[in-house]
Amino acid sequence: MKSIEIGILGCGIVGTGVAKILIEKQDLLASRIGARLHLKHVADLDTTTDRGIDFDDGVLIPDAEAVLNDPEIDIIVETIGGKGIAKEFVLKALKSGKHVVTANKALLASFGNELVGAARESQVDLAFEASTGGCMPVIKALRESLVANRIERMVGILNGTCNFILTKMSKEGCSFDKALKEAQELGFAEADPFLDVEGHDSAHKLAILGALAYGMEINLEDIHVEGISKITPMDIEFAKEFGYTIKLLAISKNNTGTVEARVHPAMIPSSSPLSHVEGSMNAVTIDGDATGQTMLYGHGAGMMPTASAVVGDIADIARNIISGTRQRMPILGCPESNVRTIPILPVKEISTPYYFRFEAADEPGVLSRISGILGDCGISIKIVHQKGRRSNGSVPVVMITHHAREESAQKALKQIAALDAIMDEPVVIRIENNDN
Amino acid sequence: MKSIEIGILGCGIVGTGVAKILIEKQDLLASRIGARLHLKHVADLDTTTDRGIDFDDGVLIPDAEAVLNDPEIDIIVETIGGKGIAKEFVLKALKSGKHVVTANKALLASFGNELVGAARESQVDLAFEASTGGCMPVIKALRESLVANRIERMVGILNGTCNFILTKMSKEGCSFDKALKEAQELGFAEADPFLDVEGHDSAHKLAILGALAYGMEINLEDIHVEGISKITPMDIEFAKEFGYTIKLLAISKNNTGTVEARVHPAMIPSSSPLSHVEGSMNAVTIDGDATGQTMLYGHGAGMMPTASAVVGDIADIARNIISGTRQRMPILGCPESNVRTIPILPVKEISTPYYFRFEAADEPGVLSRISGILGDCGISIKIVHQKGRRSNGSVPVVMITHHAREESAQKALKQIAALDAIMDEPVVIRIENNDN
Repeated sequence: MKSIEIGILGCGIVGTGVAKILIEKQDLLASRIGARLHLKHVADLDTTTDRGIDFDDGVLIPDAEAVLNDPEIDIIVETIGGKGIAKEFVLKALKSGKHVVTANKALLASFGNELVGAARESQVDLAFEASTGGCMPVIKALRESLVANRIERMVGILNGTCNFILTKMSKEGCSFDKALKEAQELGFAEADPFLDVEGHDSAHKLAILGALAYGMEINLEDIHVEGISKITPMDIEFAKEFGYTIKLLAISKNNTGTVEARVHPAMIPSSSPLSHVEGSMNAVTIDGDATGQTMLYGHGAGMMPTASAVVGDIADIARNIISGTRQRMPILGCPESNVRTIPILPVKEISTPYYFRFEAADEPGVLSRISGILGDCGISIKIVHQKGRRSNGSVPVVMITHHAREESAQKALKQIAALDAIMDEPVVIRIENNDN
Repeated sequence: MKSIEIGILGCGIVGTGVAKILIEKQDLLASRIGARLHLKHVADLDTTTDRGIDFDDGVLIPDAEAVLNDPEIDIIVETIGGKGIAKEFVLKALKSGKHVVTANKALLASFGNELVGAARESQVDLAFEASTGGCMPVIKALRESLVANRIERMVGILNGTCNFILTKMSKEGCSFDKALKEAQELGFAEADPFLDVEGHDSAHKLAILGALAYGMEINLEDIHVEGISKITPMDIEFAKEFGYTIKLLAISKNNTGTVEARVHPAMIPSSSPLSHVEGSMNAVTIDGDATGQTMLYGHGAGMMPTASAVVGDIADIARNIISGTRQRMPILGCPESNVRTIPILPVKEISTPYYFRFEAADEPGVLSRISGILGDCGISIKIVHQKGRRSNGSVPVVMITHHAREESAQKALKQIAALDAIMDEPVVIRIENNDN
């Protein structure tokens, strides 16, 4: 039986999971693939920590260069993370003719086009299913299963930390800070949660999905990003009253000549499939013009789910090797010459319904002034809700609007915030219906 | 640009959808695949009906044999359906060295092993993503994405007609007959709904999924099948009160040395992802030992969703052709020599919690006699619920049990049904929790 030699760079959580699967499931994998996936080396500076794996002598070594330079190794698995040394190693592997599997979304979102170019030049495969949505096969779905579709829209819950926090806030009425603290205690959130809670991790993933869905170059820079740290239990409660759930969404839409790509908290109808995605689970809905709406759901992170996706990629490449082919599937879903540069629509030009909450002095004429400004800015109000829940002498005035342009909304909010009767910064949350 | 020649056999709903995509989206497909998918012929006895497609002269012909015998055609798409002539044509195509794509679950479930053998002998691809779950990429997920997993369990809502009917009964409280009638009027149900509502369509799909998940031969015969025609609004109401939703499920589990495979209505927790799958939508949860639970969700039928899956398969084969490889992916997910015959556990040997409803005379001692029989049969009651809703002089006695063996449950039901105080056939619905 043919043996395919694998080297892992970085034996942290994901690397350990991949090594575990390759070692403990070698017979299962061989019986399915028809070739042996042999873990020849794992490189990590820390070779002493007990990872619960019984490595054969000489498998776990400190020297990544030795793995990269090993002519027998067919596939390099990069599980170091980050954009520093990981980039250097991946480029080196690709240029030396080794296939690469990575789970590194930050690297791909920032330098993906360069890496794709290097892989193409060396005629090797670069696979990254694990980078987005963990074990949900969203990369494969976009590149392969949905090939007959013009992708109209993708809406994803792509960060488990944020979803855990929002679910907890929603179920227990607690604050963002308290929910974040618990997420950290449970190991769902990093000690430095910035990339997660401020939406950047989701943006990395959206940049990757957008490229595959629309046949465009990876573009992280132009994605509009907002996080969830300003979401309050009060807005979650109002959302529920209006039949909505608040989620951190990665949204992209296929317009004519441009695409939308943005990450921000949004209200979605409580009846929609995504609203039932709770805790640290991830999901993404993909609307194709032939399929209609489909959804993938699963663990978006964690040692074994992520490792499962990495090994799925390894198996794909192994099957290419057995079949004597390489780059059977173009990395971005279509041949290089057909990958286009499609501009991302500036966020001020999008149009969406809004939820506004104004903390207003409880005095006559305030509602009239607010609605006057909205009217002047061309924003049409669908629902107004004023409840006697005072706090600090103000009452929350809550509104749901019809579709409005972001630029108009921001202009109106600025004017409303400047009113004497407005006691606090207005809250604005976009609404994502199935129809916008 | 290389051209890959395609022939479609059968221009009904799905065949028409495939032709539409191949013709209307030929540029999109070529830009993604890097080869032209050329629809050379569509064979259908009816060449006159307007299908809304502008076929070039000579494309739509009545003679399937002419398509099968055309040496230029690389890929045959079988969209005739049924197990008669479709089988003959598929076998002929495979034996003559043509790749085949089909959406025909009945054919695969009944004769799949034979067809797989024929494909292997000719070293051609046989693809059938569209046979199960419509546009949800469940075949690809099982064969490729989840390769690192021992599949522990699959639970699917795989028949849109049944799910439409049950959703309607649940939301409107109407009878099975009324819901079926509406499904027929709306085109969700066939004029003869037997295969759908009695569970056989779901069983066909489960037979296919089981083979891929467990590396076993396709086995339709031993799948236990029950349909939904006996489900009443009363049981749906009781289910809701206990926190359950009734769905027609295709369930399979990976035991040691055997698998479970059964199709029947079941109560699932209203908080579970599958319980939110409404109307004619399909979904399947797959529990892998590495991934944990994942779910795919989408349209399980319909012209364009099914055609999308067919064209996905065509693209896969086209990419093989471009790469100069064939049978890159073994048809059942692992090489033939590793496909095993694994017995399906007889249904009487399964163990599951149950919902029972007995229509009992409103007289003293009945509950004692019922619970006595259950106790004698080793069945432990978790919840009893007796409500004063009389109908015909009887009261419904409703019970939820702990796990019990099917054989014991059937024995107890027989004895209880024979009691004088029991006015009607007992109702039994299995409960599918995440933990059984």
